[in-house]
Amino acid sequence: MKRLGIIGGSGFAGAELMRLCSQHPEFDVVFVSSESQAGSAVADLYPSLAAAYPDIFLEPWEAIPPGLDIVFLALPSGASQAIVPKLQAGHIIDLGADFRLDDPALYPIWYGHEHTAPELLDQFVFGLPELFRDDIAGAGAVAVPGCYVTTASLTLAPLVHAGLVEPRGIVVDAASGVSGAGRTAQPNTTFSTVDENFTAYGLLTHRHTPEMEMALKRHSGAGVEILFTPHLAPMNRGILATCYARPTGTENTDALLDTMSAAYADEPFVVVSEAVPSTKATLGSNTVHLTVRRDDRTGWVVAIGALDNLVKGASGQAIQCANLASGVSETAGLPIAGVYP
Amino acid sequence: MKRLGIIGGSGFAGAELMRLCSQHPEFDVVFVSSESQAGSAVADLYPSLAAAYPDIFLEPWEAIPPGLDIVFLALPSGASQAIVPKLQAGHIIDLGADFRLDDPALYPIWYGHEHTAPELLDQFVFGLPELFRDDIAGAGAVAVPGCYVTTASLTLAPLVHAGLVEPRGIVVDAASGVSGAGRTAQPNTTFSTVDENFTAYGLLTHRHTPEMEMALKRHSGAGVEILFTPHLAPMNRGILATCYARPTGTENTDALLDTMSAAYADEPFVVVSEAVPSTKATLGSNTVHLTVRRDDRTGWVVAIGALDNLVKGASGQAIQCANLASGVSETAGLPIAGVYP
Amino acid sequence: MKRLGIIGGSGFAGAELMRLCSQHPEFDVVFVSSESQAGSAVADLYPSLAAAYPDIFLEPWEAIPPGLDIVFLALPSGASQAIVPKLQAGHIIDLGADFRLDDPALYPIWYGHEHTAPELLDQFVFGLPELFRDDIAGAGAVAVPGCYVTTASLTLAPLVHAGLVEPRGIVVDAASGVSGAGRTAQPNTTFSTVDENFTAYGLLTHRHTPEMEMALKRHSGAGVEILFTPHLAPMNRGILATCYARPTGTENTDALLDTMSAAYADEPFVVVSEAVPSTKATLGSNTVHLTVRRDDRTGWVVAIGALDNLVKGASGQAIQCANLASGVSETAGLPIAGVYP
Amino acid sequence: MKRLGIIGGSGFAGAELMRLCSQHPEFDVVFVSSESQAGSAVADLYPSLAAAYPDIFLEPWEAIPPGLDIVFLALPSGASQAIVPKLQAGHIIDLGADFRLDDPALYPIWYGHEHTAPELLDQFVFGLPELFRDDIAGAGAVAVPGCYVTTASLTLAPLVHAGLVEPRGIVVDAASGVSGAGRTAQPNTTFSTVDENFTAYGLLTHRHTPEMEMALKRHSGAGVEILFTPHLAPMNRGILATCYARPTGTENTDALLDTMSAAYADEPFVVVSEAVPSTKATLGSNTVHLTVRRDDRTGWVVAIGALDNLVKGASGQAIQCANLASGVSETAGLPIAGVYP
Repeated sequence: MKRLGIIGGSGFAGAELMRLCSQHPEFDVVFVSSESQAGSAVADLYPSLAAAYPDIFLEPWEAIPPGLDIVFLALPSGASQAIVPKLQAGHIIDLGADFRLDDPALYPIWYGHEHTAPELLDQFVFGLPELFRDDIAGAGAVAVPGCYVTTASLTLAPLVHAGLVEPRGIVVDAASGVSGAGRTAQPNTTFSTVDENFTAYGLLTHRHTPEMEMALKRHSGAGVEILFTPHLAPMNRGILATCYARPTGTENTDALLDTMSAAYADEPFVVVSEAVPSTKATLGSNTVHLTVRRDDRTGWVVAIGALDNLVKGASGQAIQCANLASGVSETAGLPIAGVYP
Repeated sequence: MKRLGIIGGSGFAGAELMRLCSQHPEFDVVFVSSESQAGSAVADLYPSLAAAYPDIFLEPWEAIPPGLDIVFLALPSGASQAIVPKLQAGHIIDLGADFRLDDPALYPIWYGHEHTAPELLDQFVFGLPELFRDDIAGAGAVAVPGCYVTTASLTLAPLVHAGLVEPRGIVVDAASGVSGAGRTAQPNTTFSTVDENFTAYGLLTHRHTPEMEMALKRHSGAGVEILFTPHLAPMNRGILATCYARPTGTENTDALLDTMSAAYADEPFVVVSEAVPSTKATLGSNTVHLTVRRDDRTGWVVAIGALDNLVKGASGQAIQCANLASGVSETAGLPIAGVYP
Repeated sequence: MKRLGIIGGSGFAGAELMRLCSQHPEFDVVFVSSESQAGSAVADLYPSLAAAYPDIFLEPWEAIPPGLDIVFLALPSGASQAIVPKLQAGHIIDLGADFRLDDPALYPIWYGHEHTAPELLDQFVFGLPELFRDDIAGAGAVAVPGCYVTTASLTLAPLVHAGLVEPRGIVVDAASGVSGAGRTAQPNTTFSTVDENFTAYGLLTHRHTPEMEMALKRHSGAGVEILFTPHLAPMNRGILATCYARPTGTENTDALLDTMSAAYADEPFVVVSEAVPSTKATLGSNTVHLTVRRDDRTGWVVAIGALDNLVKGASGQAIQCANLASGVSETAGLPIAGVYP
Repeated sequence: MKRLGIIGGSGFAGAELMRLCSQHPEFDVVFVSSESQAGSAVADLYPSLAAAYPDIFLEPWEAIPPGLDIVFLALPSGASQAIVPKLQAGHIIDLGADFRLDDPALYPIWYGHEHTAPELLDQFVFGLPELFRDDIAGAGAVAVPGCYVTTASLTLAPLVHAGLVEPRGIVVDAASGVSGAGRTAQPNTTFSTVDENFTAYGLLTHRHTPEMEMALKRHSGAGVEILFTPHLAPMNRGILATCYARPTGTENTDALLDTMSAAYADEPFVVVSEAVPSTKATLGSNTVHLTVRRDDRTGWVVAIGALDNLVKGASGQAIQCANLASGVSETAGLPIAGVYP
């Protein structure tokens, strides 16, 4: 059994790491930190984990025991770059944004502050296994991509990589469940605000935009430009991204589906189908559902992807990366069947 | 008091007509029909209407009394064209699709059947008061537009009309609550299917597409072409349309907002603001919320509109049209404050 | 038109007063206060009210103009008793708990603090029109009952008053939507906490308990004793109370229904039926739905009531009381048809 | 690996069996039947299972291969008794009601029809492991209890068994998510009917009533009598039962909690705590949460339990029973951490 630590265990991504690890045959969570909730029992903060972790208490991160095999960081933007330089672990898996962008100049533009550890950026590989598996295998440090980024990148990558759509002028219109906004009570995430509501947010400026562009550019070699509009849907989990791009050639829907299917033929966590994806089919699982259409009337390609933002969009993908990094079977501990209904 | 009839009272649009008329100072519902539920009391089918309509029973439409001032039809596609030719009433307000499109050739393409009363098409005016008020005032027959059409048309009309965006290549990406699918129990509208789910449907082929194009073309004179992707959100009511178009000039966000505000300056049911619209702010009211942005980085204009699909998107707009057609104050009986939360 | 003020306009009950008054033929809101949001526009705090109140800004309560016909207070427990002694108005309608209980000794027990204006308690009448209409007509000060209290009292009152059930040993098991907890963001009212969740709270100690007992005792003359268990349901609005009492005689279900129907025969806002009430039928309206059963097998009477906690359970009932107090038609401005679905 | 069959795979309980078995280390699903959906792929009917079961098609039950180690039946009431007599399998685990009640005379009263295989009733053990583990270990045929029955029985059993509450006059007031009503589209389970709604149903006559009484009587030896009122909450999954009973002695809340904790001290799937249970903490897991209170003021004991109706209330418990019956570790394949949020 590998010994694991989680820095940032009070948030949803941290809790989801614990849930998934409770069924992982080779991962044993031995340390969980929280600044805001230090001293609380995991079972009090998350009754859903009471039966699985009756005895773990949240501690300050500095109490982390030495020599852990794997350490996950599930922290707000900006927090990891202060901790990682001081951290010793076999493998560091960061679920935050601090080590995702390869260009430190993008941080002040999109995150509003200079990066304080830019020299570490190139030590992190980008944790999207379906696109960059070889980088992740055996890696010492992995930056797991954001939830919207994972969805849009997996949806568009085969089409952009094959040159079937123009890499510029792409629109990504996506909707997410509310858990993406985190656990903290805020006016915009109360039940009364969100329930029976559908709205857009972060118009033109959402921080996942440059990350999508970077992931697709790195994978395809093309200069990708995306307008990204996120929406908030009245549900706990799930992201669906509807992506619009201009076709470069005459490939019809069947040809586009074939390209997409071929790209993911051996992927255990990707389902490509003519059926329209829905977030609910992915709930609680590490599975992504994808489809694509071409509209000859208006000259657009529409590609759609769906996943669970806390699993394949965060903690599940982090465990997938940890499996790859530490040499465990890539699928270990990761559900592929969704909780339905 | 004007005497009203409702043909198709068992569906949600019919029920919403009854709800709104129960507070209308000059409208009195005296007849309600239903084929499928004939013989049932309104109060049994809709307990929400029990206190307002304790004594009205649903009857076959042929039992309609002669000489009604206004008759609403709230029927499935294809049903109105069989009834309207036999109908006598001061004003006919059709909430269905049968008399919306001005070109009968569009019906086989988008609805799958020939129109059986094409000679009546030009007797109907298009019931979108903010764009075609003069046509509706005093009209004998009004075809009320679809819910998505109302949302997208009101959102885009000022920009297209002023020539600020290209009329072709527009993407309308919209999400609706489930009431748009009607009252009948179907596998895709059960609670277990819809709750905690977000999905797309009707890819490339949704019937509201040509209606949007027609409405915007008629209002602006330009040849509008739209790719429309509807989504289903886990909520009862509400539509939010996020519309993407290419700017023709250099107008920035403020200039676009000014154009939009000026276009609707005197409209009692339209709120233009920099704030991002949300469906929930419109619940139960006849109000539309609109905004717009320009993204210089990628060269897109993003315009967003929200409304209640059963009020401004159906029954409220039908009453607004009936008010105009019958010479009553346009705002009579129509709530402008939303039910929140 | 009567000139109205609302003290405490930033909360849900205050917003609901504004929504209902926007359709009231004789009430004109001229002043709205908020301590926490002073300076904000109503339209910014509640976009749902933007079209109805484009020009009203929230002010500190001390800025209230003199000589208002009616002043509503919609404040947290304990706040009204500090303001009312300084307030001049034709009629004071308090939606809070400060003047509901007739015995000042109950406040330290259930609310945890001494009452600071006990001498005013007997100036307030209890604002439950169906049980105490004569007290409210023309009253200068009305304490509107709590949402759970209104539901349970209207459900049980005919049975207790007629002596058909034992007044002691009653169980009231009720569920409420989340709006009852107010607008403020709190850990227990985030969407992620509440959605897809059903739980109990306030076990044995909910503050509405003594108010239910007082209302039923005052109406029936009997010494009523209730165990009250509230639950939180994942919905915005609505309360359903399922009440269990022991029958005193042999009256069967039909006889109990007859007694209940007769008691409310002339009430415009009460529907008694064999149909099981549901909260959704009452959404946005001032209507209450009631039913009752007798189980011979186990010797219990089960009575069930449902209403909208923000309308009949708060602001609608407050307007009903204001109508009665100020001599306006009791039903003015109050919807009786629910927003469905 | 044990070879498994599922008869009735198109319903929610069947799908949940497949989900759970996809993570079970020793169970391999080789056959799934459905009468209504024969010929469909599991992946088409349940996209959530597409990645886990890409190749299984639903067949008529008669196509079941011989010699399966375990066969689950997940069928509507009345269907199992026609099939079981013809079935050969190592262990038969029935999730339906046909073999739960030990007295065949109860079937016509509560289910409306005579039992057609009463001679098989005593071959089935009652599959509630926490109360009847010894019966289930190695059993050839297990009747898994209903979801409400599991909740109420586990909540009340320690108190009734210890004689701390009166076994008669008990009220069980419970709320369930909608998945309990099954997959078939029906007027009362559409999203528009259920969402934002809370209602009661099955007043006085719910079929789980005699099963609760039987389970508690068999466990405690006392003659238990229960009035059971189920409610429908707007959520997919979860049951919370709030149970009211009269105390026999003077044991306070702490003493009652101690009794409950001691009874379940060694149970891997039961969490007893002073915290109030919530359905959401149990989502997707086989865990039950319990608490209890005594109210001296009114003389009631209130005990509350929560679980996931499709896991511990159905398919999870069925697998727990199958593990016990077939000699596998009781906890194999069963999640104890809930999916949160």
